[in-house]
Amino acid sequence: MKIIKDSVHDHIEVDGVARALLDTPTVQRLRGISQLGTVSLVYPSANHTRFEHSLGVYHLACTALEHLGVEGIEAKRVQAAALLHDVGHGPFSHNVEALTYRETGRYHDDVHELLRESEVGEVLESHDLEPTRIADLIAGEGRFGQLVSGELDVDRMDYLVRDAHHTGVPYGTIDHGRLLRELRFVDGELVLGEGNVQAAESLLIARALMNPTVYSHSVARLSKAMLRQATEQLLTVEAFDGETLQRMDDHDLIVALRSHEATREFSRRLDHRQLYKRAIWAEIDDVPESIIDADHDRRRALEREIAARAAVDEKAVILDIPSRPSMTESTTRVVVNGAVRPLGQQSPLVEALRAAQRSQWRLGVYSPADVRERVGREAVAVLDLRIDGALVSDVRSSLSTTLDEFYEN
Amino acid sequence: MKIIKDSVHDHIEVDGVARALLDTPTVQRLRGISQLGTVSLVYPSANHTRFEHSLGVYHLACTALEHLGVEGIEAKRVQAAALLHDVGHGPFSHNVEALTYRETGRYHDDVHELLRESEVGEVLESHDLEPTRIADLIAGEGRFGQLVSGELDVDRMDYLVRDAHHTGVPYGTIDHGRLLRELRFVDGELVLGEGNVQAAESLLIARALMNPTVYSHSVARLSKAMLRQATEQLLTVEAFDGETLQRMDDHDLIVALRSHEATREFSRRLDHRQLYKRAIWAEIDDVPESIIDADHDRRRALEREIAARAAVDEKAVILDIPSRPSMTESTTRVVVNGAVRPLGQQSPLVEALRAAQRSQWRLGVYSPADVRERVGREAVAVLDLRIDGALVSDVRSSLSTTLDEFYEN
Amino acid sequence: MKIIKDSVHDHIEVDGVARALLDTPTVQRLRGISQLGTVSLVYPSANHTRFEHSLGVYHLACTALEHLGVEGIEAKRVQAAALLHDVGHGPFSHNVEALTYRETGRYHDDVHELLRESEVGEVLESHDLEPTRIADLIAGEGRFGQLVSGELDVDRMDYLVRDAHHTGVPYGTIDHGRLLRELRFVDGELVLGEGNVQAAESLLIARALMNPTVYSHSVARLSKAMLRQATEQLLTVEAFDGETLQRMDDHDLIVALRSHEATREFSRRLDHRQLYKRAIWAEIDDVPESIIDADHDRRRALEREIAARAAVDEKAVILDIPSRPSMTESTTRVVVNGAVRPLGQQSPLVEALRAAQRSQWRLGVYSPADVRERVGREAVAVLDLRIDGALVSDVRSSLSTTLDEFYEN
Amino acid sequence: MKIIKDSVHDHIEVDGVARALLDTPTVQRLRGISQLGTVSLVYPSANHTRFEHSLGVYHLACTALEHLGVEGIEAKRVQAAALLHDVGHGPFSHNVEALTYRETGRYHDDVHELLRESEVGEVLESHDLEPTRIADLIAGEGRFGQLVSGELDVDRMDYLVRDAHHTGVPYGTIDHGRLLRELRFVDGELVLGEGNVQAAESLLIARALMNPTVYSHSVARLSKAMLRQATEQLLTVEAFDGETLQRMDDHDLIVALRSHEATREFSRRLDHRQLYKRAIWAEIDDVPESIIDADHDRRRALEREIAARAAVDEKAVILDIPSRPSMTESTTRVVVNGAVRPLGQQSPLVEALRAAQRSQWRLGVYSPADVRERVGREAVAVLDLRIDGALVSDVRSSLSTTLDEFYEN
Repeated sequence: MKIIKDSVHDHIEVDGVARALLDTPTVQRLRGISQLGTVSLVYPSANHTRFEHSLGVYHLACTALEHLGVEGIEAKRVQAAALLHDVGHGPFSHNVEALTYRETGRYHDDVHELLRESEVGEVLESHDLEPTRIADLIAGEGRFGQLVSGELDVDRMDYLVRDAHHTGVPYGTIDHGRLLRELRFVDGELVLGEGNVQAAESLLIARALMNPTVYSHSVARLSKAMLRQATEQLLTVEAFDGETLQRMDDHDLIVALRSHEATREFSRRLDHRQLYKRAIWAEIDDVPESIIDADHDRRRALEREIAARAAVDEKAVILDIPSRPSMTESTTRVVVNGAVRPLGQQSPLVEALRAAQRSQWRLGVYSPADVRERVGREAVAVLDLRIDGALVSDVRSSLSTTLDEFYEN
Repeated sequence: MKIIKDSVHDHIEVDGVARALLDTPTVQRLRGISQLGTVSLVYPSANHTRFEHSLGVYHLACTALEHLGVEGIEAKRVQAAALLHDVGHGPFSHNVEALTYRETGRYHDDVHELLRESEVGEVLESHDLEPTRIADLIAGEGRFGQLVSGELDVDRMDYLVRDAHHTGVPYGTIDHGRLLRELRFVDGELVLGEGNVQAAESLLIARALMNPTVYSHSVARLSKAMLRQATEQLLTVEAFDGETLQRMDDHDLIVALRSHEATREFSRRLDHRQLYKRAIWAEIDDVPESIIDADHDRRRALEREIAARAAVDEKAVILDIPSRPSMTESTTRVVVNGAVRPLGQQSPLVEALRAAQRSQWRLGVYSPADVRERVGREAVAVLDLRIDGALVSDVRSSLSTTLDEFYEN
Repeated sequence: MKIIKDSVHDHIEVDGVARALLDTPTVQRLRGISQLGTVSLVYPSANHTRFEHSLGVYHLACTALEHLGVEGIEAKRVQAAALLHDVGHGPFSHNVEALTYRETGRYHDDVHELLRESEVGEVLESHDLEPTRIADLIAGEGRFGQLVSGELDVDRMDYLVRDAHHTGVPYGTIDHGRLLRELRFVDGELVLGEGNVQAAESLLIARALMNPTVYSHSVARLSKAMLRQATEQLLTVEAFDGETLQRMDDHDLIVALRSHEATREFSRRLDHRQLYKRAIWAEIDDVPESIIDADHDRRRALEREIAARAAVDEKAVILDIPSRPSMTESTTRVVVNGAVRPLGQQSPLVEALRAAQRSQWRLGVYSPADVRERVGREAVAVLDLRIDGALVSDVRSSLSTTLDEFYEN
Repeated sequence: MKIIKDSVHDHIEVDGVARALLDTPTVQRLRGISQLGTVSLVYPSANHTRFEHSLGVYHLACTALEHLGVEGIEAKRVQAAALLHDVGHGPFSHNVEALTYRETGRYHDDVHELLRESEVGEVLESHDLEPTRIADLIAGEGRFGQLVSGELDVDRMDYLVRDAHHTGVPYGTIDHGRLLRELRFVDGELVLGEGNVQAAESLLIARALMNPTVYSHSVARLSKAMLRQATEQLLTVEAFDGETLQRMDDHDLIVALRSHEATREFSRRLDHRQLYKRAIWAEIDDVPESIIDADHDRRRALEREIAARAAVDEKAVILDIPSRPSMTESTTRVVVNGAVRPLGQQSPLVEALRAAQRSQWRLGVYSPADVRERVGREAVAVLDLRIDGALVSDVRSSLSTTLDEFYEN
């Protein structure tokens, strides 16, 4: 057994198949992938990696399994899936995912392929585990898939606490010890036992507070969009394809962006934190439905149109459209008076948090500071935004129900 | 200058009038008054006192004043009020308050009297402070009264963090550093500056989560009600009056309850944690309005009637009616788009938390375990509760959207 | 199983015999006994109790037993002993111990008697445990006694971390998780496994730093000596004997001291923190051997003699002689190169810490501020101290290799 | 003013010249340099950077200056120096330093040059600060140089606490708040005021415990030596010179090592954590003086000789000779009885810690696992070690007064 010291969970015991998986290049690669990507441009202490997070998720999975009384091959499967749940991530975690896996389901397939074809597959098989079943668990399938990837998964419990520890933002401090103890299986569904409506709410609230403060902080979104744009440029360079990109770690991508002419300027701006500014920061009710649902090619076309009308270089306009607000935790199941009920039915908070989330949604148009006004004005026209065109960003962006302006902007 | 080490705020500097006040018997008495009273029967680590809390409130007041740029006599007044804000508390803090100050306004008058007549008054005057103005600040009056006792007061900021530290419940971990920095005066009103809707919400949420988990935990309420009942008995003993009681600290009251025949049994039960059980635990919609608004004498009469019908001793029935749910934080003022708005108007959470609070409200009837069913049945009849009389507590009390059953029940 | 939330160890599971013992008056009484006694006069947050400490010790014992692979009746015995290890304490913990158990062995006998004769004995027997064997474990006897009371005991591991948490002094933050994992039995002796010399040193160092900063802080010692003196006075009052005193909790003793004429003045000084001052604070090399070894009666006689010569009331002189410096951890056994060795042989730190401890030893003579000089001068003569008599305390006491003057003096 | 959230010090206010310096590429570059280099191969959470550390040092410097009452241009200089103190570091911090600055004084000169010639120089001058004086402060020169780089510097105070936070090892938790408050200038020397011998000791002890547990953990040393060897190889490649290397960040170096044929194998081993093993781990008394003092060329020659005799590839042998044990903190000055004394004179601990440090010193010879024995045997001969040649590493290395074998080895 190996003992690893973790800054969040203290001592983590790694044993059996997890011990063997830990030493594979596929898992060691996660040391080079930061957990929060460009968030460190807002919270400078947030440099933790997918590797330590994966260890944490594995640790919480072990604790959950112990409380649930699950042992044997089933427990081994969940432990392996917990440790491996992020191996499919490309550099900067979620940041480039959208670029490389545009087709639905592609990500899932890739994890299957990855587990089957890398040395991870051999390790799994030598421990009598089928790579396919592990990949299914990672995709949230099956009875125990919910524990790895679902409304009550250990992934979320680890990242909330870990991101709070590393950013210094206290909102993620959930009582994971309690949540893990209260997990139950009822009719094959993972639920929280009687008397835990509030415990479930606290998980929901933690995410609702961490979201605008950390994950969707305007500067984090802006720099993430710049990184995405730069990476798209990189993919146009002959030597690169999605597969290559997907296997990189952060170091590779950073240096690649620095090395190519086409991406050098973006890279310089990210390295020196000389970021674009918000030209538009529009609320959901001011954006036409068709824009919200624009796909990748449409988005690129809109950027080009805005750039052309504003007479700026194409790279000087970034259009950042978040997906529609959703709240998967609302389906968290809790036992109330002996019956399993979805949290959304039981708690008045779910609807309120959904409304809060909707009110925090923003479409962003970003550009260099010196052309910001011009770009903003043209963007209002091109995107048909229901807002006044003059000095858009100043009038509307200051709304900011989020914590945008406080930290390091 | 005196430096005091605090487990929550680390080093606290105490200077000027605060330094002199610290050494008065009135302030030193707070060492003998626990912050959370009977909550320690649920969370055994929660033994912190009003003394350390008062130091913490003083410390946060100093920080807030510094950020607000307030100096001179006005700052001195606020500092004195912060340190003294709890000196009017009787033993076990809020627990016996209701007994001794039944008439409206009495508490306020008493603090005036206390500050004027004790050696505290001399200290204040020797620092050119008028006791009356300090008492007014403690009552939340005036421009700076809001900082001492209002929706954004430093009292709350300290107790949420401190109670979290000592109970081990993580929900109180607000970002008080941020809140203090963002305080502003706009037209004489204390508000949070632009971009702080979410910071204000986090304060609200912290209280909303700490409330059922800690402050109104069913066992804490039950034992608090037992303590109140015992203290009422004590007041019937010749030697005691409200004034005497009010000047006691926890040690005095505990020993007094142990010493008198009339209260010995309650005392034994509290000391040995052999508490009454819940016979009724009814939701607000099941309780007639007239019961919710019952005053002290009416409540006592109802207890006697239930006891008589159930043929048990009068002391074997305790009726515990919390005040109607309220949420003062909803009036917290926040700057949004340059205009000051009440949080309740801005945040969808306020309404939801209000609803959650209402759904957590419970009327309790407590009695010894062996007569619990009988007492429950008769209580339904006497209180005209809209619930089925048989085995009341088992059917309805298990609802428990709170964390009741988890810790040390 | 009962789950208790603890501010230090988070969730503590209490089961089996421990669950039953928890509900006994003997264990519940520990809620009324503070862990650090008068230390809260220096560190106002240090109000934690023997109850939460006992739960913590029980918890660490369970963890240690799990790592050691000990189960069954042997484990149950250790768990019971861990939870009960402090039930013999009088009010204010160690403070009055010396008064009530002067004869050697008395304390030990008393725990035997206590476990046998109280309801604790019944609980133990109903779980097939012999009270006598549990009392032996508490006294550190037998193979597992070392885990409850020895150089590597769980008592120390809990109190260092807990006292650090509650005082805010960071020095007690040992890596107890590591220490517990590394415990081994070699030839019936409890040792730390290979590669743990430094882990053992860290435990030693934590105590060496916490000692002068917290446990022997001059104000804590001074107030403890005042409390002891007051309690001695109390024992001269007819109604009190050692047995009565021993069964009190802090509340009882505080109120008793307040109630009796003979102790009212001490009580007032302790309640209002108007403490005596140091008239003498002498290093070990300046104190004759015969004084260091003075027994209780001799000490009282010396106090009277100093008082008489200084023409002050007998109560105005307190002579405080700590026991000779000792360092039990030096015999901690660690495996080095496969052989078990005592830490003192292996680590150069042990000798240094011993020297540091010796240099921090101080004999104190305390008196009211206004007679301090006179008392100091006469004490030098009576005790035959090898220091200059004039303004003794100012010249020598400022030496203070301890942190005396920093916090709240 | 900019407010930055830090996971260690919470809110850090950055103002004036520091605000302007923060936005320079020279300072932003520190985001790409990890604080602890290869230590993250032992403690996976230790991914914090020189950037956040520099902010922390700046913050502590501001606090110290405030307590010392220093303002104006002198304070601005110290603040700038604190923020800039690490800008001269190459990738992986200290790891390659030795390679690039072999000549004495070179590092110092370089910082002078760096501050003068980069945009940092312009910023400094536009704030009326002379780059040369800032570089002098960073080198520890002058009255305030001691605060930036000396026995009581804020650099150490930050890194001990920060490294503890990120590794999870509790030993670095010093009371920096207290240390900063107790700083004094006496006759131009920075000292700790009266009553702080123990506070000074605690700083010394924290380093003494963190050293073998973290900074010199055998796996951290081993991987650091591998990285150094790889980087030396890289410097033999035409395109690279010391200057280029020095301006890289971690990302650049990692990718460069991956890209070049000559370093690919080292790089693969570091990336996949397939490290060399210890063939020799020898105590100081077993190593001839001439070996301990070997310079870089001599060390390389010895490696080649061992490799040749063991008939392995030259890269398969790494000789790792730490510098002689030293303890700069022993000269920390503390006021004792009104006189300034060096801590080494006052505290018996200093000598003991020096002895402990000496006993922990180890010369390492590392090689791939399969040739470990052969290399070990030949190394004994070549280095003329006073130890038995057979199975060297097994016999002697197990001594390990350090925590080597516990975490992730």
